[in-house]
Amino acid sequence: MRRAQLEQIRRDIRDFRSSAGLDKVIVLWTANTERFCEVVPGLNDTAENLLRTIQLGLEVSPSTLFAVASILEGCAFLNGSPQNTLVPGALELAWQRRVFVGGDDFKSGQTKVKSVLVDFLIGSGLKLPRVSLPPQTMSIVSYNHLGNNDGQNLSAPPQFRSKEVSKSSVVDDMVHSNPVLYSPGEEPDHCVVIKYVPYVGDSKRALDEYTSELMLGGTNTLVLHNTCEDSLLAAPIMLDLALLTELCQRVSFCTDIDPEPQSFHPVLSLLGFLFKAPLVPPGSPVVNALFRQRSCIENILRACVGLPPQNHMLLEHKMERPGLKKAGHVATACPVPCKKGSAPTAPNGCTGDAYGHSQAEAPQMPTT
Amino acid sequence: MRRAQLEQIRRDIRDFRSSAGLDKVIVLWTANTERFCEVVPGLNDTAENLLRTIQLGLEVSPSTLFAVASILEGCAFLNGSPQNTLVPGALELAWQRRVFVGGDDFKSGQTKVKSVLVDFLIGSGLKLPRVSLPPQTMSIVSYNHLGNNDGQNLSAPPQFRSKEVSKSSVVDDMVHSNPVLYSPGEEPDHCVVIKYVPYVGDSKRALDEYTSELMLGGTNTLVLHNTCEDSLLAAPIMLDLALLTELCQRVSFCTDIDPEPQSFHPVLSLLGFLFKAPLVPPGSPVVNALFRQRSCIENILRACVGLPPQNHMLLEHKMERPGLKKAGHVATACPVPCKKGSAPTAPNGCTGDAYGHSQAEAPQMPTT
Amino acid sequence: MRRAQLEQIRRDIRDFRSSAGLDKVIVLWTANTERFCEVVPGLNDTAENLLRTIQLGLEVSPSTLFAVASILEGCAFLNGSPQNTLVPGALELAWQRRVFVGGDDFKSGQTKVKSVLVDFLIGSGLKLPRVSLPPQTMSIVSYNHLGNNDGQNLSAPPQFRSKEVSKSSVVDDMVHSNPVLYSPGEEPDHCVVIKYVPYVGDSKRALDEYTSELMLGGTNTLVLHNTCEDSLLAAPIMLDLALLTELCQRVSFCTDIDPEPQSFHPVLSLLGFLFKAPLVPPGSPVVNALFRQRSCIENILRACVGLPPQNHMLLEHKMERPGLKKAGHVATACPVPCKKGSAPTAPNGCTGDAYGHSQAEAPQMPTT
Amino acid sequence: MRRAQLEQIRRDIRDFRSSAGLDKVIVLWTANTERFCEVVPGLNDTAENLLRTIQLGLEVSPSTLFAVASILEGCAFLNGSPQNTLVPGALELAWQRRVFVGGDDFKSGQTKVKSVLVDFLIGSGLKLPRVSLPPQTMSIVSYNHLGNNDGQNLSAPPQFRSKEVSKSSVVDDMVHSNPVLYSPGEEPDHCVVIKYVPYVGDSKRALDEYTSELMLGGTNTLVLHNTCEDSLLAAPIMLDLALLTELCQRVSFCTDIDPEPQSFHPVLSLLGFLFKAPLVPPGSPVVNALFRQRSCIENILRACVGLPPQNHMLLEHKMERPGLKKAGHVATACPVPCKKGSAPTAPNGCTGDAYGHSQAEAPQMPTT
Repeated sequence: MRRAQLEQIRRDIRDFRSSAGLDKVIVLWTANTERFCEVVPGLNDTAENLLRTIQLGLEVSPSTLFAVASILEGCAFLNGSPQNTLVPGALELAWQRRVFVGGDDFKSGQTKVKSVLVDFLIGSGLKLPRVSLPPQTMSIVSYNHLGNNDGQNLSAPPQFRSKEVSKSSVVDDMVHSNPVLYSPGEEPDHCVVIKYVPYVGDSKRALDEYTSELMLGGTNTLVLHNTCEDSLLAAPIMLDLALLTELCQRVSFCTDIDPEPQSFHPVLSLLGFLFKAPLVPPGSPVVNALFRQRSCIENILRACVGLPPQNHMLLEHKMERPGLKKAGHVATACPVPCKKGSAPTAPNGCTGDAYGHSQAEAPQMPTT
Repeated sequence: MRRAQLEQIRRDIRDFRSSAGLDKVIVLWTANTERFCEVVPGLNDTAENLLRTIQLGLEVSPSTLFAVASILEGCAFLNGSPQNTLVPGALELAWQRRVFVGGDDFKSGQTKVKSVLVDFLIGSGLKLPRVSLPPQTMSIVSYNHLGNNDGQNLSAPPQFRSKEVSKSSVVDDMVHSNPVLYSPGEEPDHCVVIKYVPYVGDSKRALDEYTSELMLGGTNTLVLHNTCEDSLLAAPIMLDLALLTELCQRVSFCTDIDPEPQSFHPVLSLLGFLFKAPLVPPGSPVVNALFRQRSCIENILRACVGLPPQNHMLLEHKMERPGLKKAGHVATACPVPCKKGSAPTAPNGCTGDAYGHSQAEAPQMPTT
Repeated sequence: MRRAQLEQIRRDIRDFRSSAGLDKVIVLWTANTERFCEVVPGLNDTAENLLRTIQLGLEVSPSTLFAVASILEGCAFLNGSPQNTLVPGALELAWQRRVFVGGDDFKSGQTKVKSVLVDFLIGSGLKLPRVSLPPQTMSIVSYNHLGNNDGQNLSAPPQFRSKEVSKSSVVDDMVHSNPVLYSPGEEPDHCVVIKYVPYVGDSKRALDEYTSELMLGGTNTLVLHNTCEDSLLAAPIMLDLALLTELCQRVSFCTDIDPEPQSFHPVLSLLGFLFKAPLVPPGSPVVNALFRQRSCIENILRACVGLPPQNHMLLEHKMERPGLKKAGHVATACPVPCKKGSAPTAPNGCTGDAYGHSQAEAPQMPTT
Repeated sequence: MRRAQLEQIRRDIRDFRSSAGLDKVIVLWTANTERFCEVVPGLNDTAENLLRTIQLGLEVSPSTLFAVASILEGCAFLNGSPQNTLVPGALELAWQRRVFVGGDDFKSGQTKVKSVLVDFLIGSGLKLPRVSLPPQTMSIVSYNHLGNNDGQNLSAPPQFRSKEVSKSSVVDDMVHSNPVLYSPGEEPDHCVVIKYVPYVGDSKRALDEYTSELMLGGTNTLVLHNTCEDSLLAAPIMLDLALLTELCQRVSFCTDIDPEPQSFHPVLSLLGFLFKAPLVPPGSPVVNALFRQRSCIENILRACVGLPPQNHMLLEHKMERPGLKKAGHVATACPVPCKKGSAPTAPNGCTGDAYGHSQAEAPQMPTT
């Protein structure tokens, strides 16, 4: 029966493609949260096992069935819900077929703001040891309630668990990126609550409190109340996901030592900007910091049109003698610490455009 | 008398330096907000005019007098208050003497958060035309109250005006950077209020409301209440400013077409991360977006130790065939749009390190 | 010309009454806030002077002109805006003609909540001297913004001043009612701000912060964000005002020493529950505490149907021996301090029904 | 062993009384929340059974053991924690011994504010049918977190359940008192969450959202963030409880039909102003509305000093002919609906003082 369902979904995809006269189909899963699926060796840990599990009619999540159908049809599959639809077997299948998969869980509201604010709070430390004592995020408490179908579904504990996992890890990379503030093993208090409150309907509410330690024992408290329309925040993310995925399907690139053009890895981590719990290739670092995720997309798109990456240094506006005429569009500017009594030299490798976006000629200081 | 005061300040700086046995002195202005000073041709518009104004005992702001004294003593001067201490004449004097100046107004609380959240809200648009209809910041209302000496001083209208100017322009660059969301001339409603409420003392309160338009006429409302300790937030910024300025005094660099080592421009715009209304060299773009300001510092410091700038692409983790052994620390990776029927080629100029920070070898997808 | 306008308004009222076939007309002023009107002896301080001022075409506020026309037509006039429409001359005219007037300023949003919370905070003191150290309201900061026509109008300073006066005095009676917490002359910090923010339209926002002192130097901070629909909150108040006023026109009463039936005073202070700055007869105390205002209406309406006032003692449920059969509907219960060694006696005057609303027989404690 | 513990506690109370030279001891329980205790017939449902249970060493809550010891020693016992310490057997014992008991759970923070705001929101309906469509509280969401010992203890589900019960019923009486807004069986969404967040310590945080329906489908949203010091709010309540209880021990009163002086019922419901889940005599109505609870105390204390209850009518300030000379301190004023064509008459029973607190002579309207 699982097998029949799989065939039905594949047929539906093919029919939709041909009846609508489409070149490509991208499948985006946005149904209610499912409970987490246990990863069991022999069952869903490899592509082969996962396919056999479906053939035998053993247990497989509905969303995973759709993912497998999409991949077998060569259609990118994006998981907008929190559960682990893309089990290792599905990832391997995507790898084998060179089909893009992305996930998990649309990043629409509270978590998106959190990924910005935690980055801000921790980042304000500048990582200069012992000198500045910046806001040290010590507790993050996040309350949510919503009254739509999704909220009702989340009031079941197994589904809530999926959501909680998806929402909880969002601060990890930012915390671990700053060993000055957080020694290994040290974590901020972090607590996530979701309640089903029918009256508010689709108008989801998020109440967050960030409490940070200041120097000399002071405290900084940031309280947020966010009223968002759950569906209206999610819908443009769905459009963006489809468009970005399609764009990525048209990109190939080569490297200095591997001149053969290649595509992106089937696990399309570039979509992390739009996902709460970004799926990355096995072994890759997970980036949750929103501005880094945006820089990633921005700089890859710049590269696609032949522009160097943004580095925000704006060095041409920071020079004592800015009045240089640039030879072509590439100029080199290497700040180096001036060693006492020695002539400064640019370190090797410090070539390439160190400039930011503005290529306008920098003005001179007016002279009297 | 102005002349005598100028001499007295200069003498105080010299005495402090010698009595404390210091190599360098950096002067940081953190007195109460002064009213804005009118820039008048012939009075304070050039270094020469400003010095003559002081000689003649004409009107000059106290903070400007300190700035001139510092510059003449070769000491960097940083303005932590909102008013326009660094009038054109003072800037020119700094340029002539090659002394660093920076300002204006410590970025400690509400404005800092605003520069993050507005960047976030506008940036969520991804600049993809007509497709995603992202949170469009349409109104920003910022209320503040505090009860310390600074609050009392700001209850005088001319001083409040200085503060208002300093706080208001913070969203401009982010708004203008996104012509998809904001047509030229279009601005969000933006309103700033500061009140003196003695009871709260140094425990400054900021209440902000950001109202954004979603697709289909929906509304997103983000409300913040921030309790901060005004002085405890400002103090580490003061330490950081002094340290960063001193570090910059030790940096020189050269460019491809100008091999002679040079220093940073006397108007030290790199400090913008820590100032509410960043002072930049005449004609330079003002960057308020906090994460760009941080990237600027991070990448310049990386360059100082010979590292390429961060671009957050993490391309080595996004490749279909990641298993390359890198030749040295620089590898090249250029994503290019694959034109139909033609072999993909890397565009000119797309050289240099396109990698992010992590140089760890990317894992392969397991094969069965 | 003022005279002609007055006649026109009177004619309009008469025409409306006859064309609609009405017995009564009640006029309710809900136009935009006007600036405060100066009370000038000889101009608007008496009924006679006010009428002469209109005859002579001297300055009179538009709303006052409507009030005079209404009174002369025998129609009750209610002022829903903050300015002092009902100058002494208008009040005297209402008194002479025995026509009801009420005001000022619909109590719809922030002020209504404030009149509840301040009453709560101050009332938590229980007025027991020196023993409990209750939340002492020390600062109240109230920010508002709205984007409708009313908001735009209030952005003009003279009109804002009218509103500010109307909103500011709301805590006075509650503060002065508790001399344990507030010595004479002592006041909480209280600050009111209103801004015009077009984008939010009729969706008025109120942000309030109440900071109170706890025992041992602790602090209690209560922050509110209120999103209300300005018109939808005001509209039912307008209906209630008209209905209550009409009801009051049908009430007359007599007293022990004045057996002749009389009506309410023309300045209908019973409407204070619905007005931000309740208008009361000259020399009467102003009550802002919302629950006292509600008790007033509730108990007067109870008296109209022959019920004793509510006193909330519920004594019949607090007795050791509750099983009394009551003789008629009035029973007497007088708690008295039991003097040592003397039989307790009821003080004189302690007659009448001391019971609350429930007359159900109180149950006995079960005996084993 | 339970028996020995009981004896030990009784001995401790006696020793404390004699060593400190006290006339009276009042015992106040303020230990951590216990889990709810099941009321089991034969075990703790009657005084006799409860005492036997203790004798036999069967299960009894620690707090109940203290309550029994206190009652047997003739000492009033007050329960400041949420669990049902005062099981029916303990109540009966108190009744038999004529010892005051009170409870449950200090009303210090979020619940206190809620009992005010819900009363305000529902009360704004004025109970006038179909005419005004007032803020109808439709959802109340209350989040709490705290980091003290109490918070840690509440993170155990059975203890949390005790607290949840104590906090949840607080809106019931106010909802049921307004059948115009709420038909029988209709309830607002009401949800209570408590989390243990160690970092915030004793500085308890409450985040509440009240969403109400306005006329024409509008919505009113009230969001609160309350920072309170848990212990500093509770401590004065403990003092007040002891003082009020002691005062009540000195009050006796008589009624018209029962001239023998009697005391208050042993279940001292007058303390409800200070308890989250007010304990009342079996069969009595529970009042949660804070202002009614305060009126109760105020009016009973007034009666103790021979003053009539407050009714807030202030009729002497609402009369057309206020200039009466009052005969003694009692005057009578009875508003009656004026029936068409008949002389108004005061209804029977409308005697007694209908005046409010101010007895100052009301001023006349000036005559010209």
